[in-house]
Amino acid sequence: MAKQDKLVQEITPRDVDFAQWYTDVVKKAELTSYSPVRGAMILRPYGYAIWENIQNYVDKKLKETGHENVAMPLLIPESLLQKEKDHVEGFAPEVAWVTHGGDTKLQERLCVRPTSEVLFCSHYEEIVQSWRDLPKLYNQWCSVIRWEKTTRPFLRTTEFHWQEGHTAHATAEDAKRETLLILDLYKDFYQDFLAIPVISGLKTDKEKFAGAEETYTVEAMMHDGKALQGGTSHYFGDGFARVFNIQYADENNELQYVHQTSWGISTRVIGGIIMVHGDDDGLILPPRVAPIQVALIPIAMEKDGVVEANEELLARLGKHFRVKADFSDKMPGWKFSEYEMRGVPLRLEYGPRDIKKGQVVAVRRDTREKMFIPVDKVEEKVSELLETIQNDMFARAEKSLYERIYDADNWEELEDILENKPGFVRAHWCGDQACEDNIKDKLSASSRCIIEGSPSAEKTCVSCGKPAKHNIYWGKAY
Amino acid sequence: MAKQDKLVQEITPRDVDFAQWYTDVVKKAELTSYSPVRGAMILRPYGYAIWENIQNYVDKKLKETGHENVAMPLLIPESLLQKEKDHVEGFAPEVAWVTHGGDTKLQERLCVRPTSEVLFCSHYEEIVQSWRDLPKLYNQWCSVIRWEKTTRPFLRTTEFHWQEGHTAHATAEDAKRETLLILDLYKDFYQDFLAIPVISGLKTDKEKFAGAEETYTVEAMMHDGKALQGGTSHYFGDGFARVFNIQYADENNELQYVHQTSWGISTRVIGGIIMVHGDDDGLILPPRVAPIQVALIPIAMEKDGVVEANEELLARLGKHFRVKADFSDKMPGWKFSEYEMRGVPLRLEYGPRDIKKGQVVAVRRDTREKMFIPVDKVEEKVSELLETIQNDMFARAEKSLYERIYDADNWEELEDILENKPGFVRAHWCGDQACEDNIKDKLSASSRCIIEGSPSAEKTCVSCGKPAKHNIYWGKAY
Repeated sequence: MAKQDKLVQEITPRDVDFAQWYTDVVKKAELTSYSPVRGAMILRPYGYAIWENIQNYVDKKLKETGHENVAMPLLIPESLLQKEKDHVEGFAPEVAWVTHGGDTKLQERLCVRPTSEVLFCSHYEEIVQSWRDLPKLYNQWCSVIRWEKTTRPFLRTTEFHWQEGHTAHATAEDAKRETLLILDLYKDFYQDFLAIPVISGLKTDKEKFAGAEETYTVEAMMHDGKALQGGTSHYFGDGFARVFNIQYADENNELQYVHQTSWGISTRVIGGIIMVHGDDDGLILPPRVAPIQVALIPIAMEKDGVVEANEELLARLGKHFRVKADFSDKMPGWKFSEYEMRGVPLRLEYGPRDIKKGQVVAVRRDTREKMFIPVDKVEEKVSELLETIQNDMFARAEKSLYERIYDADNWEELEDILENKPGFVRAHWCGDQACEDNIKDKLSASSRCIIEGSPSAEKTCVSCGKPAKHNIYWGKAY
Repeated sequence: MAKQDKLVQEITPRDVDFAQWYTDVVKKAELTSYSPVRGAMILRPYGYAIWENIQNYVDKKLKETGHENVAMPLLIPESLLQKEKDHVEGFAPEVAWVTHGGDTKLQERLCVRPTSEVLFCSHYEEIVQSWRDLPKLYNQWCSVIRWEKTTRPFLRTTEFHWQEGHTAHATAEDAKRETLLILDLYKDFYQDFLAIPVISGLKTDKEKFAGAEETYTVEAMMHDGKALQGGTSHYFGDGFARVFNIQYADENNELQYVHQTSWGISTRVIGGIIMVHGDDDGLILPPRVAPIQVALIPIAMEKDGVVEANEELLARLGKHFRVKADFSDKMPGWKFSEYEMRGVPLRLEYGPRDIKKGQVVAVRRDTREKMFIPVDKVEEKVSELLETIQNDMFARAEKSLYERIYDADNWEELEDILENKPGFVRAHWCGDQACEDNIKDKLSASSRCIIEGSPSAEKTCVSCGKPAKHNIYWGKAY
């Protein structure tokens, strides 16, 4: 039997080995477990509960903006995947191929979906006839497979969970508006719900999605200064529509091609939460996404009335918050570090002395600040505290992001910053992919997104010195 | 372009061709669409919304009873699937095999999960060490693939969506209690939520799950008298635990094997809703599961104040019910049959005359009964009506079920009933699989479940005439 060690283990400090810290936290907090399939993770109850909270938030926002959920098949016939040239080139090398059903060899190979553009296109071709049928604003929650060589929990796994939205619109303008609406939705999701500040903008052609005209991205900065692409929203123009022949009769009864978008966020998000907010004692979860918002720890449970008083407090708090009361026979100190390690935003301690004084001890996970709150106002105070923690976590992460964005005017400055200062660099670029490749090859940094607006005339490309076309955020990335 | 005909088409009457009626309803109500993959369906927004309501109900009940959601990988290595002999024999002939990742042939084939017992077992082997770790009450929502030869939307598809629960317990008693707790949960789900009465009980050895010691089932009767297996709950004993070596240290620090269960319901449920409740005009959805509970149809929209009055009514109703107000320029009569066909339980009509009289016209989908309700009490009355519709639908389905259960004391009676009377037959059986096979071969009826209690001494097997061991529900089945 391969049994894991259940003793409380030390977590590697972040600044000693960030990658090892990440692995330790994911394992100790019981977010995932390795599975018998290489590169595919098991999402354990605590990790999956975070994903469920994310799903609930995003699903609600999508429904409020008129999107509908559907379910497309898991498998895609090879001939369908091959219809759009750029798309198949982008994905074919990393798909899993089904060749047999039971004992029978299939006449045509099927791939396990790496993404579902072609399935939505083939469906839209069938169901869209008239301008009255538009827009179609479909989304699905599912898992997809991409045969990655090196994998890490949440960040890069052969199978991952996500939502993929696929929409069809009458005009280019409508589709572009949708692309940006979703970009904003993702930005709000990161900032308001996960307390993670992001920069956002257009990807360069090199970094855009296989088959898209434009890809917008939200990018977050991790504790180590590296970028995490947090979510992307693609504008397809009528490229897929022409290949899949998705036409509608407009109000003059003339046939027009639809214009499309697609967009997604995945369980990668959870990797971002860990790497933005965590500390050397483990996870720190923003209250809005935390499966447990309040850990209630009874003190001196053996004393008369303590269990009852805690049960009463739990019943009151349970009406408003996600509370876990721990009545197990472990020592309070053990429980403290357990819930700290799991990132529970607020701990309450309630023992005989507190009961006597009509108070509850409250300890914030993010600042370790310890307070006494009156038991008769506990709902109100806990609500305020959770709100404060959420806001403070965002403010700290925002400060940490903007303090670590640097400007480089030439190659030497760019090289110096990328070697010595973890973070993002703003640097001008001529628009030529050779220069983008050069920066990636020599400095291991990729363009994260294009900064809106035209550079002033004197600005030059940090790589070739020719006149600049764009200012770009560059960074090392997950 | 293969465009579907969007004109309102007639639905084949149920008693002319029930199979065609079913196909017509599924298509016309836009529940599913065929996909480019043989036997895999697309769940369209209306069909998926039904599934979401089912998920919400079942998920809540599972969480209330202490179950936690997880996500296991989609792919299973062949060697893992092969560990339990009965299990692999049951599933290997119908799995889809992945043989290549990108261009590379895999060292070991992976199957797309047909069910996930072996993955949960391998995970439990890793995470269960002590009696303190038990029970583990895990569930996942996902899709699975079984390579079926003939397929029909919802009823039998190569890919289907479901929840699969997998639990591990310290003792056989605990695991048996769980098996029955879930059976009850499924029974309540069918009866209270879907208004579908079910019979329930143990499966015979021939019909039980591959690898289980015992399989319990809930069985519903469709309009045509055929049975639909609605959900199953399996008790595994320690069979899988011994194969996968899932042991825990008990309170005396002695190693014991866990006892396990698994159980699931799938999108098949939706086929049951259609075939139990539907009529010749289409779907009839029980209010609790209906994506749209109330269709509000403005009458004479061109008249002053009608749109505004309907918007106001929509705002009031929308706070309590799932309401769809149809302000499109289609004729009211067209809208009436559209929402009837889609099975919306209650239609409200609101026009100038109603506004003047302070009333709303209400029409029940199930009985066609038309009523006038005072607009100032509309929330209360709609709530009562939806409750009444839900209860009446159950009562009608219950009557239809119990009226069509017959008793057969010998082969001739059994044959006569199965040939001439759609429904279930209660008939005694000796317990020998040869007799069960004989009934299946000659009369196309399978044992649905065992009726609790011992038959009296004079009862004999309808097939061989030997003393009866059990009374059984037999039926033709989907």
